[in-house]
Amino acid sequence: MDRNIYLNNMDIDEALKLFIEKAGVRKKNETIKVIDSLSRIAAEPVFAKYSSPNFNAAAMDGIAVKAVDTFGATEVNPIILKKNSHYIYVDTGDPIIEPYDAVIMIEDVTETGGDSLKIIASAYPWQHIRPIGEDIVAHEMIIPSNHTIRPVDIGALLSGGITDICVYTKPKVGIIPTGTEVVEPGTVLEQGDIFESNSRMFENLIKEYGGEPIRYKPVPDDYDLLRKTIKNAVKENDIIIINAGSSAGSEDFTQALVKDLGQLLTHGIAAKPGKPAVLGIINEKPVLGVPGYPVSAYIVFEIFAKPLIMSRAGKKPPRVNFIESILSRRLISSVQNREYVRIKIGKVGEKLIATPLSRGAGVTMSLVRADGILEIPKNSEGHEAGEIVKIRLLKDIEDIENTIVSIGSHDLAMDIIGNLMHKKDSVYNLSSAHVGSMGGIMALRRDEAHIAPIHLLDENSGKYNIAYIKKHLSDRKIALIKGVKRTQGMIIKKGNPKSIQTIEDLLQRGIVFVNRQKGAGTRILTDYLLKKAGIKAEEIKGYEREMTTHMAVAAAVASGSADVGMGVYSAAKAMELDFIPIGEEDYDFAIPVEFLEENMIQLFLDVITSAEFKNELRKMGGYETINIGEIVRI
Amino acid sequence: MDRNIYLNNMDIDEALKLFIEKAGVRKKNETIKVIDSLSRIAAEPVFAKYSSPNFNAAAMDGIAVKAVDTFGATEVNPIILKKNSHYIYVDTGDPIIEPYDAVIMIEDVTETGGDSLKIIASAYPWQHIRPIGEDIVAHEMIIPSNHTIRPVDIGALLSGGITDICVYTKPKVGIIPTGTEVVEPGTVLEQGDIFESNSRMFENLIKEYGGEPIRYKPVPDDYDLLRKTIKNAVKENDIIIINAGSSAGSEDFTQALVKDLGQLLTHGIAAKPGKPAVLGIINEKPVLGVPGYPVSAYIVFEIFAKPLIMSRAGKKPPRVNFIESILSRRLISSVQNREYVRIKIGKVGEKLIATPLSRGAGVTMSLVRADGILEIPKNSEGHEAGEIVKIRLLKDIEDIENTIVSIGSHDLAMDIIGNLMHKKDSVYNLSSAHVGSMGGIMALRRDEAHIAPIHLLDENSGKYNIAYIKKHLSDRKIALIKGVKRTQGMIIKKGNPKSIQTIEDLLQRGIVFVNRQKGAGTRILTDYLLKKAGIKAEEIKGYEREMTTHMAVAAAVASGSADVGMGVYSAAKAMELDFIPIGEEDYDFAIPVEFLEENMIQLFLDVITSAEFKNELRKMGGYETINIGEIVRI
Repeated sequence: MDRNIYLNNMDIDEALKLFIEKAGVRKKNETIKVIDSLSRIAAEPVFAKYSSPNFNAAAMDGIAVKAVDTFGATEVNPIILKKNSHYIYVDTGDPIIEPYDAVIMIEDVTETGGDSLKIIASAYPWQHIRPIGEDIVAHEMIIPSNHTIRPVDIGALLSGGITDICVYTKPKVGIIPTGTEVVEPGTVLEQGDIFESNSRMFENLIKEYGGEPIRYKPVPDDYDLLRKTIKNAVKENDIIIINAGSSAGSEDFTQALVKDLGQLLTHGIAAKPGKPAVLGIINEKPVLGVPGYPVSAYIVFEIFAKPLIMSRAGKKPPRVNFIESILSRRLISSVQNREYVRIKIGKVGEKLIATPLSRGAGVTMSLVRADGILEIPKNSEGHEAGEIVKIRLLKDIEDIENTIVSIGSHDLAMDIIGNLMHKKDSVYNLSSAHVGSMGGIMALRRDEAHIAPIHLLDENSGKYNIAYIKKHLSDRKIALIKGVKRTQGMIIKKGNPKSIQTIEDLLQRGIVFVNRQKGAGTRILTDYLLKKAGIKAEEIKGYEREMTTHMAVAAAVASGSADVGMGVYSAAKAMELDFIPIGEEDYDFAIPVEFLEENMIQLFLDVITSAEFKNELRKMGGYETINIGEIVRI
Repeated sequence: MDRNIYLNNMDIDEALKLFIEKAGVRKKNETIKVIDSLSRIAAEPVFAKYSSPNFNAAAMDGIAVKAVDTFGATEVNPIILKKNSHYIYVDTGDPIIEPYDAVIMIEDVTETGGDSLKIIASAYPWQHIRPIGEDIVAHEMIIPSNHTIRPVDIGALLSGGITDICVYTKPKVGIIPTGTEVVEPGTVLEQGDIFESNSRMFENLIKEYGGEPIRYKPVPDDYDLLRKTIKNAVKENDIIIINAGSSAGSEDFTQALVKDLGQLLTHGIAAKPGKPAVLGIINEKPVLGVPGYPVSAYIVFEIFAKPLIMSRAGKKPPRVNFIESILSRRLISSVQNREYVRIKIGKVGEKLIATPLSRGAGVTMSLVRADGILEIPKNSEGHEAGEIVKIRLLKDIEDIENTIVSIGSHDLAMDIIGNLMHKKDSVYNLSSAHVGSMGGIMALRRDEAHIAPIHLLDENSGKYNIAYIKKHLSDRKIALIKGVKRTQGMIIKKGNPKSIQTIEDLLQRGIVFVNRQKGAGTRILTDYLLKKAGIKAEEIKGYEREMTTHMAVAAAVASGSADVGMGVYSAAKAMELDFIPIGEEDYDFAIPVEFLEENMIQLFLDVITSAEFKNELRKMGGYETINIGEIVRI
């Protein structure tokens, strides 16, 4: 098999137009039970079969009378009515039949003993009677074509005597996961294996868009096997999605198979992520080859599969909400393609701040965390920091407004706080960005965060945090919410195979270090320790390799790509690694005082002082919580 | 069984507080497959089990190399690498294992024949390698408690090695329909029967609110049978809804049964519709008795069942959107209770107009048609026409903005037009209110409608519509869109059992007439015909009984409550009645010229001039369409 080095770079809009044109619109109908029709879409208008009510009915509990018998009744001249000759009892909904033509409410009659009643007001003809068809008249339209069926519609349809309804058939979408390296979740991962997850994301997107997903078992990279599966899927479905195998690798067969079995429309689109998409038609069925990286897969699916599924399902295009927001940092983008940048939006004071998340095509968590997508068009080189950009929202703006924006140092405790906040009151969220302590201080300075978790050692005083706030945030009223004392040290492999003991051992031959990024409190601590020991940073192998979290450092050690890194005890413990403690430090929260009274910050304070939180910290290990929640105004 | 005449009038908020307090919060958890977890709500935070990727992986298709072997390569001094000793081929996602520590993209290497490659740039360590945990680091939180699971979350959870997830159990909600008069839809209606539809509306509301509905077969009004069913339902469910039997009729057992089996909290709340609700607790399970009228049932369910279901399902309270709108007519309301008025909202020009729909508790169609609900608080006497009121929206405001507001005369063709519009482009809707031709003219005058269907005979000229527009809309630029010529006449019973021949026969003894409302074109025609024949209106039996549509007149004749009414041929035909034609009239559309160019009006014009529409009219009978769609500027 040859390598497919060269991909097209077809414009996205052009590709979509071509794909939709070639795919054609093929809506199908089916008749289903009304009681099963929630959220389905009517393919035809529905006209009532019966009137509702289907007879003249009592609208009140009371007595049915002939109006003429009641004329002239007043308080002074009451009229006595006799049961069965003048009246009968009726409950709401009972049919009113000749000779009766009016209803008097039970509250307005007085029992006089025996079988007679006294009334003191006359009834007018047809009073308190629901006429036939008051609600629905037979042959009246209940819902039009293309109407999405709601619970109240189901009630009305049944009242109108309709039990079956013609709706658009859900388009069947076949999903074929491919790749010798993918294994089903739940199995044990061998070296090089990855869990097959894209097809499950697709399954559920397809459900949301009104389609019926049919997932095939993952197919290894075998041309003939894949060919057979695709032929079968084309028979059984309206739309076919082939996941992975669309790239330019040696075992990427999708484009060749589409050519072999049908018509290839393009291999390659001007999208990032998503470039190696394959569009084709086999037996008049649209076939979409999506790249294997989860974010590429998602983007390509959203661009090409979503409109196809929704239009066949009879759904109208979903409403798209945009919001204008200030870009927190520079974004350089290629002029070759349209880039889809996942964005975290934060509302701090009156400002909406857009912060790009990881641009890696493999970072699923960027989709989980995203509040919106920024599309940078082809021929644009990107945006400058501070520019106002238009973000397509993936969430409700209210959810964004109810989110604490925390920017600063990383600690595992932030996940715990976020969870407990959302657990106590699911209206509120915590968004936690890890850019190091100094990054947090700078974010507060630029009004881009509510809160900055920091652990910054002042070399002169040997104390934490306050000196940095005084120096860098002198013009702001800042409070320091005391957090945890946590143990820092060297994270090393289980059993310490390279016998690392002190910071000086980092210089030993054969020892590979993994570092944190500039501005991280842990990096500052590392540099302080190296300086104290008289060690030059450039002499340490791996000093230039930077990770942004404690867990990423621990993961590098666990995977063997490094022997040692600096970090907190809880990260070493979580990864089942060994740990050499170096010292304790104060991990606190800097916050502009004007935010202290906000509900979500009060919830934050409730959470960090709660027994539940302290208990979680105990389980993780390496924390002390003596003065947690104390507020020091600086 | 005694009649329960007196109901409480418990304040709604007080009743809800009491009900929720007594019901308690009892969330349950269950563990399900991640792949089946769409839209479920996490009961616990989920932390990744594995890192993703779980190994250092090639981020590009290309070759894996040792970075040191590549140092110094330039265009002038290329380096030749030997397969297997210097490099191996890798595809995206392949693991990178020792001794390799960098990847060079396939595009950046040149084959030199044999097993060697040329490179012209050096690789830096770890370039184009996805480090272990780039996406997800083991033990990192993927989603917090109370998070509603989306397709992208499912992808991330599986990538993190999670196959099972602890979510809130859907609360089981038992629905017991009651009433000897209710029959299952699909059976033949006997006199006095009605189709059981509320339980099906509830089933689907429960699904939407995150519960699991369990519907019991309708139970006739039999105390012991009902008692047994309730006891059983209390065992099998978390929440119990008893439909109907909550009123003050002789066979309304719900409150007695709740007292018998548990604790009655109230019988009666200060709500309209919805007053006869029953709230109780049986074996610590909340029991809600809802009135039988569909709208009362819906309102009571929304007030009391919805918050209970959603909180047990772990859902946060739904967002409520209000909109300010001008009330089109006076609304008088009792100070005794909170009234829930269904509202149709129209956007005409820049004005948002709120028009109350039928306030009848039995009018399901008022829920189908409603755009929002106006709550008139207890102690308020209502609102004046022109007042600005706050409407709780049931639809997206965009749907309201894309709706043609048609107010005026009724014709069956309006349903057909509405359907064809929505079928051609489901973005647009037609809202059609039937208040008679003169009502339509007045609505245009008050800027409350886009379009007014009218058929108004000018007695002097014998011509239709133009004279009325000139007289009543003289200060406006109005166009008349020509509509249909339709046949008016007398709608009579099949076979004409009372031998009605001419308008004079309305005076015959034993003949009961049914009329249209004042301002209706058909009423004006009737009065014109009576005047011409020298007949006094008060001599006609039934002249004072008014219906607002042709179909309602036909339904009255069909049901036997009248012998004859004036209306269009198509209504008589639809109801399989006989018809005595009297003459043809012009049913046209008056429209302010400024609306003519709007997209939705253009769609309206497309529809009425379409072959499909004309074909539908032919099927209904009694229409001619010679100059339909012609625009006459007045």
